[in-house]
Amino acid sequence: MKREINRQWRLAARPAGRVTPADFVWKEEAIRSLADSEVLVRNIYLSLDPTNRVWMNAAPSYLPALEIGDVMRGFAIGAVEDSRHPAFSPGDLVQGILGWQEYAITNGATVAKVRRDLPVPLHAHFGLLGHIGLTAYFGLLDIGKPAAGETLVVSAAAGAVGSLVGQIGKIKGCRVVGIAGSDEKCRWITDELGFDAAINYKKGSLVRGLMRHCPGGIDVYFDNVGGETLDAVLRFINLKARIVLCGMISQYDGDKTLPGPSYLANAISKRARLEGFIVMDYYDREQEAVDALFGWFAEGRIKYRVDIVNGLEHAPEALSRLFDGSNQGKLIVKISDEPAR
Amino acid sequence: MKREINRQWRLAARPAGRVTPADFVWKEEAIRSLADSEVLVRNIYLSLDPTNRVWMNAAPSYLPALEIGDVMRGFAIGAVEDSRHPAFSPGDLVQGILGWQEYAITNGATVAKVRRDLPVPLHAHFGLLGHIGLTAYFGLLDIGKPAAGETLVVSAAAGAVGSLVGQIGKIKGCRVVGIAGSDEKCRWITDELGFDAAINYKKGSLVRGLMRHCPGGIDVYFDNVGGETLDAVLRFINLKARIVLCGMISQYDGDKTLPGPSYLANAISKRARLEGFIVMDYYDREQEAVDALFGWFAEGRIKYRVDIVNGLEHAPEALSRLFDGSNQGKLIVKISDEPAR
Repeated sequence: MKREINRQWRLAARPAGRVTPADFVWKEEAIRSLADSEVLVRNIYLSLDPTNRVWMNAAPSYLPALEIGDVMRGFAIGAVEDSRHPAFSPGDLVQGILGWQEYAITNGATVAKVRRDLPVPLHAHFGLLGHIGLTAYFGLLDIGKPAAGETLVVSAAAGAVGSLVGQIGKIKGCRVVGIAGSDEKCRWITDELGFDAAINYKKGSLVRGLMRHCPGGIDVYFDNVGGETLDAVLRFINLKARIVLCGMISQYDGDKTLPGPSYLANAISKRARLEGFIVMDYYDREQEAVDALFGWFAEGRIKYRVDIVNGLEHAPEALSRLFDGSNQGKLIVKISDEPAR
Repeated sequence: MKREINRQWRLAARPAGRVTPADFVWKEEAIRSLADSEVLVRNIYLSLDPTNRVWMNAAPSYLPALEIGDVMRGFAIGAVEDSRHPAFSPGDLVQGILGWQEYAITNGATVAKVRRDLPVPLHAHFGLLGHIGLTAYFGLLDIGKPAAGETLVVSAAAGAVGSLVGQIGKIKGCRVVGIAGSDEKCRWITDELGFDAAINYKKGSLVRGLMRHCPGGIDVYFDNVGGETLDAVLRFINLKARIVLCGMISQYDGDKTLPGPSYLANAISKRARLEGFIVMDYYDREQEAVDALFGWFAEGRIKYRVDIVNGLEHAPEALSRLFDGSNQGKLIVKISDEPAR
């Protein structure tokens, strides 16, 4: 049965500071017919990621800025309902930037088929084996280049990317110290995921925590948060340290008067490297990462957890939870049911 | 005639903010006799460098911190007066970290002979062909990796290192924009050294200057100053930009509450790299740099100027001039006469 109405969240306003549900507006519109090369996708899972906040700013980032009134941008997985593109047929499962909506009409060239030969949940294709897993894998291994015996520090360590980074660091023989925002998260990454130590930055001094848990200094820092956390880490970097600039969630509220790292000069004394990266640059090496990540997962060496919110209508309030740290695992909105396999 | 008294500047206090002559104390002491492997050097030229200020802080940098009462650390060139090291004889010209003093007693292993086969002034061995030249050469070419047609921005562009960086950038085919602190300096780097444009950061907005003179964005930034200048540049970096962290003169006054760059998050969107380096890591490749730099100098493609202060007694006030920007060229203190050749 084909629906005729598409329900969407559109950008209502640029967030002033922290994003709130008031920055989105709910809209219903008729589903138009397809042009050549287009496909109609029924969205099933929507991925909520910190980078969503960056896309809402007026300034372009690694993608063009959204305009007010645009359908909110987001990674999603869905099922093809109708196709005028030769590569896709109804029933195919696809992923791409399909937006915060029940149905997406998109050029077939901008979506990729989801492989179904691996025994993982469908949403793992944007989690462990998708942009989350690839971010952790290439960011840590290609930019961070950890060696066995080195000390790796990860911020937002209980988050979707951070929790994988720490586990990959352990597989590579590093001492891994995670920074997270609650005792429960700290327990999870040490007791369940095998991190060597965890620092609850909301309880006591991060600087003292780093001194205590990184007695030999820090060789690799995988930075998801920026700001004061980056600054604290810069105080303890070793010679030739590598800092992976993956995200700066502390800076995303758009207040440019926030100070950056005062200890950046340490990067000179220590001949350190800070390097930004975006996972999209690595999609041509996807197979390498998927093989490794699935292999580790199948061997029980990598775990992950998901936090699934039911119903597109809850997406705005769910996004807020990413920024107050109350989500537990990869945050996903379930928009519609998976097809029977 | 051998002197028996050595006159020295020693560290009297850690500077609180900007370094002043009151942070040094003048001392005279007898010259002791040499132990095995030691050489006695009569210092001729003392190099004053921004990094001297870093060495005065309590925190170690890439070298151990000085203690209060230590002879002030500095690069110098001198003549061997007496030697108990098999590799050195009286009359040899040597360079090394010989300190702010008339005579240095040092292990022969820590000084290097100055080559005299090139027709350059003696002090060029710590200028164009010494740590200044090597800093510009390896920092720009190894860390910055400029390509022809790219836009290179240099701060402290009329300084000893910056002026060489810009000229090497021109030789490599870059569009070169310098940031300096006076109209005279700006004229010198454009009219005499061939920079494409110069921005006087003390006059008008640096951000507007960068917008005007870097219409295609910034590919390589050679940073000698850090702070707000680095932050301004970060707003205009291109994809895969490279930022050479060479110095942070704006941060050397030790006030750690100074903000770092707020726009560091741009390094993520732009997949940029910021990398610190110290010239000492490149001494094993000295010959490569000296050959290139001397070759360009002999062809008239590289110019430099020196600002020579006569008399060790003036070293502290001369050092202050590095930080108020009033020196014009590589700042050198002449301590004693060159030997006749």
